[in-house]
Amino acid sequence: MKTRREMLATMGGAAGAAGMIGAGFFSDMFVGDAFASAKPNLKAGFPYEYIKLDPEEAAERGYKATYEGHCMYGVFTPIAEMLAEKIGDPWKSFPVDMFRYGAAGVMSWGTLCGAVNGAAAVIYLVSKDPVPLIDEVYNWYSQASLPDYTPKNPKDPKMKIIQSVSGSPLCHVSATKWCEASGYKFFAPERGDRCCRLVASTARKTVQLLNDQLDGKFKSQYAIPAAVQECRSCHGKAGFIENTNTKMDCTQCHDVDPDHGK
Amino acid sequence: MKTRREMLATMGGAAGAAGMIGAGFFSDMFVGDAFASAKPNLKAGFPYEYIKLDPEEAAERGYKATYEGHCMYGVFTPIAEMLAEKIGDPWKSFPVDMFRYGAAGVMSWGTLCGAVNGAAAVIYLVSKDPVPLIDEVYNWYSQASLPDYTPKNPKDPKMKIIQSVSGSPLCHVSATKWCEASGYKFFAPERGDRCCRLVASTARKTVQLLNDQLDGKFKSQYAIPAAVQECRSCHGKAGFIENTNTKMDCTQCHDVDPDHGK
Repeated sequence: MKTRREMLATMGGAAGAAGMIGAGFFSDMFVGDAFASAKPNLKAGFPYEYIKLDPEEAAERGYKATYEGHCMYGVFTPIAEMLAEKIGDPWKSFPVDMFRYGAAGVMSWGTLCGAVNGAAAVIYLVSKDPVPLIDEVYNWYSQASLPDYTPKNPKDPKMKIIQSVSGSPLCHVSATKWCEASGYKFFAPERGDRCCRLVASTARKTVQLLNDQLDGKFKSQYAIPAAVQECRSCHGKAGFIENTNTKMDCTQCHDVDPDHGK
Repeated sequence: MKTRREMLATMGGAAGAAGMIGAGFFSDMFVGDAFASAKPNLKAGFPYEYIKLDPEEAAERGYKATYEGHCMYGVFTPIAEMLAEKIGDPWKSFPVDMFRYGAAGVMSWGTLCGAVNGAAAVIYLVSKDPVPLIDEVYNWYSQASLPDYTPKNPKDPKMKIIQSVSGSPLCHVSATKWCEASGYKFFAPERGDRCCRLVASTARKTVQLLNDQLDGKFKSQYAIPAAVQECRSCHGKAGFIENTNTKMDCTQCHDVDPDHGK
């Protein structure tokens, strides 16, 4: 049997090259939060080329794309399309249809919202320093009143789509909180349109962040909430319990007594 | 400004072609659970070609790959590599490094476990009927005692890695439950190795399911638990509350009184 290195050497393109010079087998990456600063392997033709795009166009295309292929596809595909139009390959041949899998937290499982799953994928594919942008999108998505994009060509101009704060990057939490805030049922057309607008907001945010980073002017505006940092001080890395590693809001699932941790 | 159809026509390959003949704008896909039976557009050169692979080899490669690029990369990359070796393009040029983004529920956010995020991505990319396989992986991951793969070449042969049941496809839930069951802290090397083995288990399961489907002998062995179906009867589609759409175990986050729903 061939070694992993030999096997990778048989692969062409960015995939094989990046693999060959990636972190060595049995590195200590799991000890500590090593990938908090993880960067793509820039020597390997990775990340893909990115040039500045129009955030508003990404949003409008994202709104429409979500009706075609759902939320994850709705963020990834417009950005890939716009880059394919400007750059050509490798974007022209990227199998964007793959990202239909992320629909409704992966095929109705309600796990990670496809909008932010797709945002992380495209950011990682094009950014030379992706983690701060991914953190920004996830904190923004969790804390901002969304959707904040009104389509130029809405499906139904009479629809009233209110904003809500999800507190979470999870599909089920985000969608159900919007249902509670709006009074609409989950399978109402309004909830569907809300998700298309939320994707549009996320596509716009993603492009804005990538543009800012390219211009060297990216600044984080959202941070992990202080309450979550407090939880992490005991439950996170180097805390005396150290039983988790998450940036999500703990109290969305965990009831915490007032004297918890005292 | 060009129409979406015109824009897509400027893109080549599977991406553009699939987009052009995808579901129409403003379809009713959001009304009802339309994508529960969603299938890729087979007319568009999508999905990518898949041929039967060795599940055990996928597992062993997945174990090693997770030490290189974390969990999502650890499921996707071995399968892509093995197909690249057997088929060549388009697998040879696939930018597998992108999937490093899914590490620890997307760069330590603790959301969706990267193993099952990667499994869904690769299943959707190669299967002609992906949703039953994705459901099977997610139910299996939530209900089985894992990891169930012992590497041929472990990082440390002396490590004892116990099994646990996550009850959830979420990274934080899965990892923290294993910490509770094993007594190890999150950032202990044992927890890292546990996740590498869990990825190996998931890569093997994914290949087994894809092989079975190719042979026409796939049969589901795992279903959504009856208790979750009961929740869905009121909170899911056509229920009188209808405020969610998820297949995750509700009681992991929601305390439910004994007389709830009576």
